[in-house]
Amino acid sequence: MKYLHTMVRVSDLDASLDFYCNKLGLVERRRRDVPAGKFTLVFLSAPGDEDAMIELTYNWAPENLTGGRNFGHLAYQVDDIYKLCESLSKQGVVINRPPRDGRMAFVRSPDGISIELLQKGEAKPAREPWASMPNTGSW
Amino acid sequence: MKYLHTMVRVSDLDASLDFYCNKLGLVERRRRDVPAGKFTLVFLSAPGDEDAMIELTYNWAPENLTGGRNFGHLAYQVDDIYKLCESLSKQGVVINRPPRDGRMAFVRSPDGISIELLQKGEAKPAREPWASMPNTGSW
Repeated sequence: MKYLHTMVRVSDLDASLDFYCNKLGLVERRRRDVPAGKFTLVFLSAPGDEDAMIELTYNWAPENLTGGRNFGHLAYQVDDIYKLCESLSKQGVVINRPPRDGRMAFVRSPDGISIELLQKGEAKPAREPWASMPNTGSW
Repeated sequence: MKYLHTMVRVSDLDASLDFYCNKLGLVERRRRDVPAGKFTLVFLSAPGDEDAMIELTYNWAPENLTGGRNFGHLAYQVDDIYKLCESLSKQGVVINRPPRDGRMAFVRSPDGISIELLQKGEAKPAREPWASMPNTGSW
């Protein structure tokens, strides 16, 4: 038995690929357009970790994608949480839970999917501007 | 960068462990009770695939956990989709999307998390009672 992927629906494929790939750093592995069903599937995974995927499902018919409480978040280990959060922030992504402890941060995808970022190995020493940055919204 | 886990919230930890472990076949890898925060975290993964986890978050305060549309499902590859669906069904789990094609089935966790089961390798030859079994509900 093997974990394959977590599927999330996306309302704007370009905006989602910009977030997940350009900003967060995941890599597109394969894509399938299904005109008969009017949907597109895009599989992403972290660089160096091709096995565990996210499947983005883009239904061509517009849909308002709300969240629920039973799903919590997706979590990724990252090499440098400060560097990634700085890069995300510069590109307009709100750091909902800044890495005040040098260990953990949360952001959200354009459709509100909560994403946990965890520093690989030991937590980094606390550092400004993160150490004193308040939370923004929920995650 | 590395995928770590997908977190889902559960309203009844015993019922969830019964579903995810006893019925679906995942294995509990570690658990953390946090009395100060009144929550319990349980990490599960598939046998033989310890890296990609599900994190169950059980908040001790009762909560009604509804679903949303931005999250889709968790997907697992399974060795014998007929055998697993028969076992799930015998234990009272509704097979929302039966494996009519010998390849794909969907069930739901007690809190409504949709779970896709995909046959490893080639699809199995169509077989009753699955081949003619209708869908039940949504997934």
